[in-house]
Amino acid sequence: MVPVRGICVLGLGLIGGSVLRAAVAAGRPAWGATASEEDCRAALADGYQVLPTVADALRRAEDDDALVVLAAPLPAVDELLREVAAVAPRCRLTDVVSVKRPVTRTVRRMLPDARYVGGHPMAGNSVSGWPAGSAMLFHRAAWVVSTDDSDDAELWADVARLALDCGSHVVPAESAEHDAAVGRVSHLPHVLAAVLAAVGADGGPLSLALGAGSFRDGTRVAGSRPELVRAMCEGNRAGLLTALDDALGRLGAARGSLASTGSLGATIVAGHRGRATFDQLAATERDKLVIRLDAPDAMAELSELGRRGGRVVQLDGTTALAEVPNPL
Amino acid sequence: MVPVRGICVLGLGLIGGSVLRAAVAAGRPAWGATASEEDCRAALADGYQVLPTVADALRRAEDDDALVVLAAPLPAVDELLREVAAVAPRCRLTDVVSVKRPVTRTVRRMLPDARYVGGHPMAGNSVSGWPAGSAMLFHRAAWVVSTDDSDDAELWADVARLALDCGSHVVPAESAEHDAAVGRVSHLPHVLAAVLAAVGADGGPLSLALGAGSFRDGTRVAGSRPELVRAMCEGNRAGLLTALDDALGRLGAARGSLASTGSLGATIVAGHRGRATFDQLAATERDKLVIRLDAPDAMAELSELGRRGGRVVQLDGTTALAEVPNPL
Repeated sequence: MVPVRGICVLGLGLIGGSVLRAAVAAGRPAWGATASEEDCRAALADGYQVLPTVADALRRAEDDDALVVLAAPLPAVDELLREVAAVAPRCRLTDVVSVKRPVTRTVRRMLPDARYVGGHPMAGNSVSGWPAGSAMLFHRAAWVVSTDDSDDAELWADVARLALDCGSHVVPAESAEHDAAVGRVSHLPHVLAAVLAAVGADGGPLSLALGAGSFRDGTRVAGSRPELVRAMCEGNRAGLLTALDDALGRLGAARGSLASTGSLGATIVAGHRGRATFDQLAATERDKLVIRLDAPDAMAELSELGRRGGRVVQLDGTTALAEVPNPL
Repeated sequence: MVPVRGICVLGLGLIGGSVLRAAVAAGRPAWGATASEEDCRAALADGYQVLPTVADALRRAEDDDALVVLAAPLPAVDELLREVAAVAPRCRLTDVVSVKRPVTRTVRRMLPDARYVGGHPMAGNSVSGWPAGSAMLFHRAAWVVSTDDSDDAELWADVARLALDCGSHVVPAESAEHDAAVGRVSHLPHVLAAVLAAVGADGGPLSLALGAGSFRDGTRVAGSRPELVRAMCEGNRAGLLTALDDALGRLGAARGSLASTGSLGATIVAGHRGRATFDQLAATERDKLVIRLDAPDAMAELSELGRRGGRVVQLDGTTALAEVPNPL
């Protein structure tokens, strides 16, 4: 019988506020704290437990051996970690920040004695603040749980259980692999959308008047709040640079081929194939498998599951039930 | 009193089939012909007038002084124009091909005596064939009508009237300006979607498993049929090359700035501003104005209207009622 571990959420914006709601909805003891008076008042008004200060919330986490969830944007992580280091330097810690290597490095430096496993729920970023949150925000979303630390399967299971309780499936990945992947599929789309919107606007009102479905879809995320997009993309500098170089290479090759031979065949066919693989991955049959979290190579096995496009969908004690797509 | 001019549609795929349906729905005498036996049978079964051969359709167009609509993909335009040249070399001619300068050049070369004003309805391209068409396909869409030929306002009005009868608004533009604009807002989005889909797939199953809304939207048009996307994009080589160079410059600048200073500020802010302008242009108040098509500078006035993001929404004889956005 696994005890129900409490959840202490630091930061009650869109993501943190949704984690608090979802944890409570799942029957977990859960409380939060935030530096934002606005979010604090709104969460209290909605009937959630919000302690007066982050230190109060952390002291309760110490008493209850709860899981502390850092739910601040990347630029605010340092300050929050200073408070954690002062009150609960040996706590169980995870985060929901969109980049993993920089957070991991900061945690190791500032909280060398904490038990930490990083996380990243792949959901929502174009709005912010407590009122925008929802207990359903993470429903059917991928929630990455880091596999860097090979000797703390117990904490890995704590974090995965929170993700599952929030309605997500768990994608295990090493921090560096996570950052490379989201550079490609989450941060590059924002840069390309920005470039497309600017190139369209460069053509003046005539161009924009002729923009239809392909332009509307391709620029949608350029409508997100610039400061949020910047924090997210700039925080993943290494992962995004690799993706940008790949994109620049492919775009330059398309330009060269069109100019010299008139053909975009290789570009269009590769793109069509990539999108088809994406659609197939979402729709394909999945094989079930079981991963024992108390096995010595559990973290390596989880990482390999993630690399193959697989995910953990249930936890029963130390037994993880996973799904992996049939080879494409 | 303007006589109701007949419409002769050559090619009965998605676009041509939709023009024929919309013209009939608007009460115009309209008939078609196609080299595709499948489209022919389907259109006949739906009760439309389809003549046995393109030559038959053109002979009727000659007899009735009808407007001939070339509705073939760019690679098939030459062959169709040979038939027009053989049967009706002095007909009234327009087209619905997605690029204007190449078609205009080919028409001038093969049919020097035809009266020609190019057109391009900005609607649908991811499916094809008669069954995919609809009388409503062009409803509320922009339909570009070329303003190159400054001395044939009568034919310009014929083509604009067809577009209005199909439920579109008319965006007047010189062919070169049209091609430059659609290179930015219609063809570049397809190349960027293809690049994004390929970069995502390069990251393997883990990357694709983490792809969410921004990746899905940014790659949607990469799911379109590659041969259609290629025909459209490769047909506008000059316009698309300019847009690609602009995109490569902006993407390279983003890469350089992120690598050297860690900032994507200029990129993200410019993109956000471009998308905001696009949204404002669609939602803004519009001033009404009247353009007399029999005035000597009518085509220049129409071109300027298009450059300002304006459009013609009604024709009354030789009087065009237009709307132009308030300056943004």
